Amino acid sequence: MQLPDIPCIADDALAARLQQLIDHKTKPLGSLGRLEGLALRIGLILGSEAPALHAPQMLVCAAEHGLAARGVSAFPSDVTWQMVHNFVTGGAAVSVLARQHGLGLTVVDCGVRHDFAPYPGLVLRKVAPGTQDASSGPAMTAAQCAQAIANGREVLAALPGNVLLLGEMGIGNTSSAALLLARLLDLDVADCTGPGTGLDAAGVARKVAVLRQALAANEGARAPLAALAALGGFEIATLVGAVLQAAHERRVIVVDGFITSAAVLVAARLAPNVLQRCVFAHHSSEPGHARLLAALQAEPLLDLGLRLGEGSGAALAWPLLVSACAILREMASFEAAGVSTSG
Amino acid sequence: MQLPDIPCIADDALAARLQQLIDHKTKPLGSLGRLEGLALRIGLILGSEAPALHAPQMLVCAAEHGLAARGVSAFPSDVTWQMVHNFVTGGAAVSVLARQHGLGLTVVDCGVRHDFAPYPGLVLRKVAPGTQDASSGPAMTAAQCAQAIANGREVLAALPGNVLLLGEMGIGNTSSAALLLARLLDLDVADCTGPGTGLDAAGVARKVAVLRQALAANEGARAPLAALAALGGFEIATLVGAVLQAAHERRVIVVDGFITSAAVLVAARLAPNVLQRCVFAHHSSEPGHARLLAALQAEPLLDLGLRLGEGSGAALAWPLLVSACAILREMASFEAAGVSTSG
Repeated sequence: MQLPDIPCIADDALAARLQQLIDHKTKPLGSLGRLEGLALRIGLILGSEAPALHAPQMLVCAAEHGLAARGVSAFPSDVTWQMVHNFVTGGAAVSVLARQHGLGLTVVDCGVRHDFAPYPGLVLRKVAPGTQDASSGPAMTAAQCAQAIANGREVLAALPGNVLLLGEMGIGNTSSAALLLARLLDLDVADCTGPGTGLDAAGVARKVAVLRQALAANEGARAPLAALAALGGFEIATLVGAVLQAAHERRVIVVDGFITSAAVLVAARLAPNVLQRCVFAHHSSEPGHARLLAALQAEPLLDLGLRLGEGSGAALAWPLLVSACAILREMASFEAAGVSTSG
Repeated sequence: MQLPDIPCIADDALAARLQQLIDHKTKPLGSLGRLEGLALRIGLILGSEAPALHAPQMLVCAAEHGLAARGVSAFPSDVTWQMVHNFVTGGAAVSVLARQHGLGLTVVDCGVRHDFAPYPGLVLRKVAPGTQDASSGPAMTAAQCAQAIANGREVLAALPGNVLLLGEMGIGNTSSAALLLARLLDLDVADCTGPGTGLDAAGVARKVAVLRQALAANEGARAPLAALAALGGFEIATLVGAVLQAAHERRVIVVDGFITSAAVLVAARLAPNVLQRCVFAHHSSEPGHARLLAALQAEPLLDLGLRLGEGSGAALAWPLLVSACAILREMASFEAAGVSTSG
């Protein structure tokens, strides 16, 4: 599979100019905390001392998981298609938040077991009606995985704007994320597994047992793409494609929670410079997320105990990105405002 | 001094209805984390199952401090009036953020040593051109303190909307906040004192020594109003009045950082039900703030290492309040969306 070109965007001279601009704004040095580093990062991604975000796109990828039949989720598999319907008819959390913030909302059927009527904002890129049960073999074929990645690249390339916000839906997909995390970071899957949508302790223990079977059944799938095909979901593979394309196009990528971070992990294993384009929105309460964030050396903006997915955390963090750019573009310098400096 | 009536707004029946609405939204139980408690709180403040925030008002109170002459700040006192000018001409952080979020911005000269030309959004309620040096006696007289509180009430009462966001400016005012904290919570002032706008360790040590003198010089000022007059600034006293009036009118009060939290502490000592109307925006990196938040049993929404003041943290948290209300008003229930539930 041909990957898009994702060059290094480190630029010491631009970074120095951005830092100087930030330091001369009318405020004590460093007093805007994390917002300052965010402004610097967005400036570097967009290659500008006056970065402006436009036409932000929330991309919610949805698919069903063969593993769900093994009882790894508190909710039945049908909730996946029901929630896709809820996304496009405006009643889901991500729908409400996208409306609030003026985010374009595109929902992709990457592999849902349902025939959807046409809806504005719903894009049909179904690879198959759900993956195979990964506890007895690969979730998808290499060809299916490549197809999902190509779909993600193609869907993203058709969207306007310079910001991609990542969202997902798929009953069972915290299992896929935990499996990818365990395999690619060589961790015990028990340390990567949590309650997802709401399992109790016994449910989590059963989930771990199923996930151990899945790892054993896919023992040889160790390279990033092989692991993605063996353990992933169609929505995760489609997100990997969207992330790669967005990174290629030098868009700002706003990462949501556990599942989208797992997609970014896979993408970063394929093309490490992807991480230069990412902003991590929030620290999910799903326990594996902390390990994943640490591995990616990511420091999310929000810590609100969210564990919904859908892109809800990315949408909630979005105004902070707008603020960071506005600070850089619109705040006066000490010199321009005639404000005395310290010391 | 006559305080406004601030009744208890606890309402178990409404709280139960709100919680039920939240729990039936199309999401796993509790999966929106802190946003759910925020929605519940705003619903209770506004007395509504479908709360709507309108015409939010950022109120930035500014004044100078006699203590500043003792070298307790990294910046010269003139920065206070220079920043007031920067606020109303649009170049300060709070100006940029208020513009981003459509917040009304009112700047109050509560006691700045400068004659301002008229500006839209600048309200002149100067009690005196700065307080007296608290290290040698009371910062203000009881009459001045009462005047500042009355000013805050009157300014707030004239503003539209149902949300007040608190902001402040005053070189030296982390000293006033630290003094109020130490006095009202009976803490060692060293534990309440930090670098403010950017003192080094030696500067903080000198600041602590001056603050000890101020506490000794105002040993008898122990009741909330007496402590406010002895140790506070005109901007803090004006904020106390605004907070009391906003609580009386049952507006949502969005508390910014260390200084505005100190104003809320004083207001809550005068009328404890004030706290029922408060949302704490962020955890400041000024070290005394953690102690103050703990004393108020407050859990702020953001933790971004901010230490600017001005209301910048309140403005950054604002979209989360809008989201919480939108979730409550606009998200579909499992029943309405035809989504299967767990279990």
